[in-house]
Amino acid sequence: MSPIGYVRSPYATPADIPKGLGAEHQAEGSLVIFPEFEDGLKDIEGFSHLYVIWVFHLSESYNLLVTPPSDISPHGVFATRSPYRPNPLGLTVVRLLERSGSVLRVKGVDMVDGSPILDIKPYLTSIPEKELTRGWLAEVEKRQNTGSDSVQEG
Amino acid sequence: MSPIGYVRSPYATPADIPKGLGAEHQAEGSLVIFPEFEDGLKDIEGFSHLYVIWVFHLSESYNLLVTPPSDISPHGVFATRSPYRPNPLGLTVVRLLERSGSVLRVKGVDMVDGSPILDIKPYLTSIPEKELTRGWLAEVEKRQNTGSDSVQEG
Repeated sequence: MSPIGYVRSPYATPADIPKGLGAEHQAEGSLVIFPEFEDGLKDIEGFSHLYVIWVFHLSESYNLLVTPPSDISPHGVFATRSPYRPNPLGLTVVRLLERSGSVLRVKGVDMVDGSPILDIKPYLTSIPEKELTRGWLAEVEKRQNTGSDSVQEG
Repeated sequence: MSPIGYVRSPYATPADIPKGLGAEHQAEGSLVIFPEFEDGLKDIEGFSHLYVIWVFHLSESYNLLVTPPSDISPHGVFATRSPYRPNPLGLTVVRLLERSGSVLRVKGVDMVDGSPILDIKPYLTSIPEKELTRGWLAEVEKRQNTGSDSVQEG
């Protein structure tokens, strides 16, 4: 695995990234793809939303149990979006605003500036909201009565 | 990066996997997580849907331009779900049916049997259908008048 590019984001450090329940990721940034991969972007501008698979490159270890900022009890790391994972992979859905050559201007970044990008895929379909259940996160929301549907971190 | 487990799927070879426009992935299978990561699954059973990040381990090269089975003109690999990618990462949304220890029984597998799993994350939110555009894929659908919303491959 080696990066196809990197993220330009307004977040200089992980502490700058909004976290926890109700965190909204409206920030704009860029996916800067290395020129040798530019042909791989052909026709990507037709898609409104993209999946970005990237690396939590500042995470140096992992914990199998995680107590998210929004909760008081621990959950398995695979039931959270914690950066401290056995394989430090991030997954973000962004809205594609504009393409200029091999640079994609996007909305919804939640990565620290400079994060390496491994892959981009078109976002094709959604699971209908009525079919979704969201485990411990829904319970925390109920307790806190936020009901936000824009949570990106857990 | 090293696997946290592997997929048990009814598809013995890539040729067995439904592909192209309108391909439906209703197949059931299992995510067999190695016992040393079992603690990382705590509370995962509360989520109806999961993201699985996995490896196209049979892909040995890549092409930046791809003509999908559903179309006649080439698109950039990052605008498709082709397995022949610079980093051979797969991303699948599955429905969680049942957990037995470190084995997750799921619906919606589109991986070949034995595919290595790198990460599992909870599926938290959907992009509303009315905000989604799907580029070349929507155009192909219009031409073919299928209008399917269950396309997983492109």
